[in-house]
Amino acid sequence: MPEHHEEERQKTVCLQTMEPDVIPLTKTIDDCKVPTNEAENKDLDEYNFGPNFIKLRATEGVRELQTVIRDKNTPRTDFIFYADRLIRLIVEEGLNKLPYRKCSVTTPTGQIYDGLRYEKGNCGVSIVRSGEAMEQGLRDCCRSLRIGKILIQSNEDTHIAKVVYANLPKDINQRKVLLMYPIMCTGNTVITAVKILQENNVNESNIILLNLFCTPTAAHQLVSEFPGMTILTSEVHPVAPTHFGQKYFGTE
Amino acid sequence: MPEHHEEERQKTVCLQTMEPDVIPLTKTIDDCKVPTNEAENKDLDEYNFGPNFIKLRATEGVRELQTVIRDKNTPRTDFIFYADRLIRLIVEEGLNKLPYRKCSVTTPTGQIYDGLRYEKGNCGVSIVRSGEAMEQGLRDCCRSLRIGKILIQSNEDTHIAKVVYANLPKDINQRKVLLMYPIMCTGNTVITAVKILQENNVNESNIILLNLFCTPTAAHQLVSEFPGMTILTSEVHPVAPTHFGQKYFGTE
Amino acid sequence: MPEHHEEERQKTVCLQTMEPDVIPLTKTIDDCKVPTNEAENKDLDEYNFGPNFIKLRATEGVRELQTVIRDKNTPRTDFIFYADRLIRLIVEEGLNKLPYRKCSVTTPTGQIYDGLRYEKGNCGVSIVRSGEAMEQGLRDCCRSLRIGKILIQSNEDTHIAKVVYANLPKDINQRKVLLMYPIMCTGNTVITAVKILQENNVNESNIILLNLFCTPTAAHQLVSEFPGMTILTSEVHPVAPTHFGQKYFGTE
Amino acid sequence: MPEHHEEERQKTVCLQTMEPDVIPLTKTIDDCKVPTNEAENKDLDEYNFGPNFIKLRATEGVRELQTVIRDKNTPRTDFIFYADRLIRLIVEEGLNKLPYRKCSVTTPTGQIYDGLRYEKGNCGVSIVRSGEAMEQGLRDCCRSLRIGKILIQSNEDTHIAKVVYANLPKDINQRKVLLMYPIMCTGNTVITAVKILQENNVNESNIILLNLFCTPTAAHQLVSEFPGMTILTSEVHPVAPTHFGQKYFGTE
Repeated sequence: MPEHHEEERQKTVCLQTMEPDVIPLTKTIDDCKVPTNEAENKDLDEYNFGPNFIKLRATEGVRELQTVIRDKNTPRTDFIFYADRLIRLIVEEGLNKLPYRKCSVTTPTGQIYDGLRYEKGNCGVSIVRSGEAMEQGLRDCCRSLRIGKILIQSNEDTHIAKVVYANLPKDINQRKVLLMYPIMCTGNTVITAVKILQENNVNESNIILLNLFCTPTAAHQLVSEFPGMTILTSEVHPVAPTHFGQKYFGTE
Repeated sequence: MPEHHEEERQKTVCLQTMEPDVIPLTKTIDDCKVPTNEAENKDLDEYNFGPNFIKLRATEGVRELQTVIRDKNTPRTDFIFYADRLIRLIVEEGLNKLPYRKCSVTTPTGQIYDGLRYEKGNCGVSIVRSGEAMEQGLRDCCRSLRIGKILIQSNEDTHIAKVVYANLPKDINQRKVLLMYPIMCTGNTVITAVKILQENNVNESNIILLNLFCTPTAAHQLVSEFPGMTILTSEVHPVAPTHFGQKYFGTE
Repeated sequence: MPEHHEEERQKTVCLQTMEPDVIPLTKTIDDCKVPTNEAENKDLDEYNFGPNFIKLRATEGVRELQTVIRDKNTPRTDFIFYADRLIRLIVEEGLNKLPYRKCSVTTPTGQIYDGLRYEKGNCGVSIVRSGEAMEQGLRDCCRSLRIGKILIQSNEDTHIAKVVYANLPKDINQRKVLLMYPIMCTGNTVITAVKILQENNVNESNIILLNLFCTPTAAHQLVSEFPGMTILTSEVHPVAPTHFGQKYFGTE
Repeated sequence: MPEHHEEERQKTVCLQTMEPDVIPLTKTIDDCKVPTNEAENKDLDEYNFGPNFIKLRATEGVRELQTVIRDKNTPRTDFIFYADRLIRLIVEEGLNKLPYRKCSVTTPTGQIYDGLRYEKGNCGVSIVRSGEAMEQGLRDCCRSLRIGKILIQSNEDTHIAKVVYANLPKDINQRKVLLMYPIMCTGNTVITAVKILQENNVNESNIILLNLFCTPTAAHQLVSEFPGMTILTSEVHPVAPTHFGQKYFGTE
């Protein structure tokens, strides 16, 4: 192989390790584990991140999904199946935060039924790569929702995150946005993504973040930075399963 | 066409109208609408059917699903898509009623995580025909759960329901049973099905009924007859959408 | 348990063993293995069942699906996944046999494109129980196709098959019918089902049988009895995987 | 909004129009329509792009899928459903090009069946954005296949395509690669992607390109540049439906 090819290959490999949603393996524990002790752990559920920070009801079923996803021995097929279930539950919860209006419908036997209708004018935006794992779940619940995409990368030296690609619905400033990102460690990637949305004139209060696992640090930072944004997660825990995206797509 | 063929055809047509989960059209309103008035209607949510009768949280999203399903103008494609979503929500709720045990798993970064594991040894049973609409939703959440089937028909004259077909896992008496039947008007079909399960030595307390729409009459009858059975529904309402099975499968 | 309950339980168990699409285990090999020798086996592919008997192209992928389905060591999760793939391939092939008409459409850039449109007015009919395994595959390719159902049972002594339940679209005589039954051993169940369709005035030439595995005996009998019916299968082989329905639904 | 924000927003909008798989709207017809006349059009099917260039059998069902996808009046919900079907057919065809080995399995009745087994060691790679529309179809047929991703962007002035992001399985040089890109106009994006794969030591002969719509120009360029690569498509036609990615994801 010619020399210049070798050089280019290195660049590609380098891009891989820059994968924005995965903290380099050697740093995982330090970066993601906030200093904590047993007592603090137990109080996590009571910790208050404000009215716009919403945790999925911790049923036994949800707890099982979280367990399977965290377990390093879970086969990829199972991992995907269980992750998809947890994603659908978060998505259904997220859809509850979108606008509805009252309506009356007529049933086949001629009864009038007073119900609710979903208001159109929403969209999804996934943060590449791990956020894309939530696209199918969103589609399973919202068949033809428009789905945009944002790719953010961090410079390994400066740690500055920057957007390298964005593909958003043109009228996104008139839409509610379901922002998808399953694992939050520091919150930095999501903060950069929300800023992109703001630069496209999306109002903070129109953003609903769909997340699966969140550290207290990330929760803190996000509610401080964007108090008007709605955040849904299934668990706040000092250790975030940072292997999520790699395992879901099998690029580990 | 020879005469005896014509005769047999009649028999088939007759079987069609005996479809067990659809009350004859001419009787729908009378049979399904319990005498009621505005005030009673409003109190439905407060009505108490005991600790084993559980209603899905009436979020705006759930209310929208119910509205689309009841609306006679909903196209079949949409009907199926929205029904599938509501079914998955009921199924996820049903899975919470199955047994779990505590377990510790190791994460890819070597952390110990205290979680829950689903105990094997459950099964699904659908009541033909409308119950079969819930099979895919069950499979979407429980990939390889065994699924049995019961077919019940009522004699049009005597109104006596009898089982004409049952296909159940052999060891069903050692399993928890997720019994699937989406629309309950009088409760008679489900009562007959539960009796079949009991005859196969399934304990009442091992049955979790997954239902979408239930009349107060049916709720009453079921909790009286089988107080130990768990019942999950998304709505108690005097009018049940009896067109469900026909619309889902398009045999209207 | 009271005595009369025990009696009823026996009846249920009896119904189970009468499951129409599963030949009693003790009889499987005799009933399903037509006397044959190596040489005959090799000629199967060349055997001619006429122009309306169509075999899916035997690609390596198809051969793999057949192998996984036949293997007794295949886990149920895999079995379902691979069966669903083979079913979708048969369904797509079946859809090619339905009527299309020419049409011209305009593309987003204003070009005229001469294409084909699917003619409405078709339906599916599954033969309970194993035929129901093909319903989801049909739906994956034909979202809102109406799906009817036929239940046939054989008297264990007289071996006479009779229909005990039929739920068909009312205007079925004006529709093409995709009849679903994955495993054919003798062909008797399908013959009874086709007769039901004929009694409902469905023309033989409007029936397309979707089948996965077929014995030469069944192929013979069906093309003799209904020369105008179209038959699609993935494999003709003296041994039919009669465990299909039980393994798919987990009622073994 | 502060001035520097406005500037950044422009950059984002700019990234949008740089979407690599969509030729700018104003250029679509010129870029994608190779000068041609009626006679040439008719000969397309006979045009020979060599033994590694494979067209899906043009059944009436496939022709219908192509028609629905090209029609500008197709609702997004239908577009996605029909595109997913065509994608699954291409994926199944692609899986036939992967390695299999002979094997014997034992059936539940103790018969030996001579079949085929899929050899592990393959992966998928989608080219962002439109290639990602094929990921779910790949997963529907290959549950746990590893899926990598490549993002390529062209400089609007220089028209030079460059990779900005690549996330590939580490051992990709030892795998067969199903490269996914549904619409090919000039072939430039795919050529850049294949070069990335080659720089990661993937052998040309190990690449199977899964494509839906291809212009004769792109076909020509690809078979000239990479004669050892296998190319699967459903149609070669002078006009490529360049709206595919935007319509599938709703970012139009």
